Amino acid sequence: MEVEPTRIMIAVNESTIKGYPHPSISSRRAFVWTLQKIVRSNTSDFKLLFVHVQVPDEDGFDDMDSIYASPDDFKSMKYRERIRGLHLLEYFVNQCHQFGIACESWIKKGDPKEVICFEVKRVQPDFLVVGSRGLGPFQRVFVGTVSEFCQKHAECPVISIKRGADETPQDPVDD
Amino acid sequence: MEVEPTRIMIAVNESTIKGYPHPSISSRRAFVWTLQKIVRSNTSDFKLLFVHVQVPDEDGFDDMDSIYASPDDFKSMKYRERIRGLHLLEYFVNQCHQFGIACESWIKKGDPKEVICFEVKRVQPDFLVVGSRGLGPFQRVFVGTVSEFCQKHAECPVISIKRGADETPQDPVDD
Repeated sequence: MEVEPTRIMIAVNESTIKGYPHPSISSRRAFVWTLQKIVRSNTSDFKLLFVHVQVPDEDGFDDMDSIYASPDDFKSMKYRERIRGLHLLEYFVNQCHQFGIACESWIKKGDPKEVICFEVKRVQPDFLVVGSRGLGPFQRVFVGTVSEFCQKHAECPVISIKRGADETPQDPVDD
Repeated sequence: MEVEPTRIMIAVNESTIKGYPHPSISSRRAFVWTLQKIVRSNTSDFKLLFVHVQVPDEDGFDDMDSIYASPDDFKSMKYRERIRGLHLLEYFVNQCHQFGIACESWIKKGDPKEVICFEVKRVQPDFLVVGSRGLGPFQRVFVGTVSEFCQKHAECPVISIKRGADETPQDPVDD
């Protein structure tokens, strides 16, 4: 029917729970859902585009025990951040490689919801998949949701995949 | 990967413009998008579930020139409505048959947004596709949007497909 593969952008981020660059529960869920329900065994019909937006560490909390004495200290901090991001993308790219699905992945910095919408405009995927914590209205007020913003503002169709009830951590704001 | 086909529910309705049971621009667009971007040539991997919700004609405008003299007159009115709905579903089922895609279709009555969410709960599709007129915030206040409601309330992932700019009729509220 179509000659070009369907280009699916998937926004992925790191888990807030575990220490090292594991994908968040909701972004792993969004990825697995896309494989199981959309791609299935038709691996040559789809191309996955992973975008990971790193939030600048505004309060410096992650590096609270670090001492900054020279410009190089900042460079090494940025380097560590970059490594974390690359590890995250490596997870998804490895999985795609294993299943034989074409993919691309890249890292951006900024406010995830704004950057994802900007990347949609730039890359023009056929649609965007975003994971969602599936928070209730009360919790949403405080934490904001990337998926809702993208559904309203992204210039392509958006499908938001909620975590399973069995995957929800003790504190549902965690992911 | 998965043995069972992915079950995609598509909400369809009649056009507000043309006289007879043509699908609305946005529901035809949602259907074509699903074929081109998701199903592609993998017809045996997907099953399409068409739900058409008929809105009861509250003000009786459609039958203003009719004379109701017996219970049978009401019956014949309901019969005509039913025929219109069946013609609409026939369009989609014929297309699926032509492409060799398994499908089911049915008619319900009521408030489309509420009924679609109810049907999602009952039928449990893998995801729901709804067409959208892509109205701006000002127009949305007056006409309401089924797609936004479903994205918030349906118990499955929802993807909303906007009409193309070239498909938008002179009055964008029309569809």
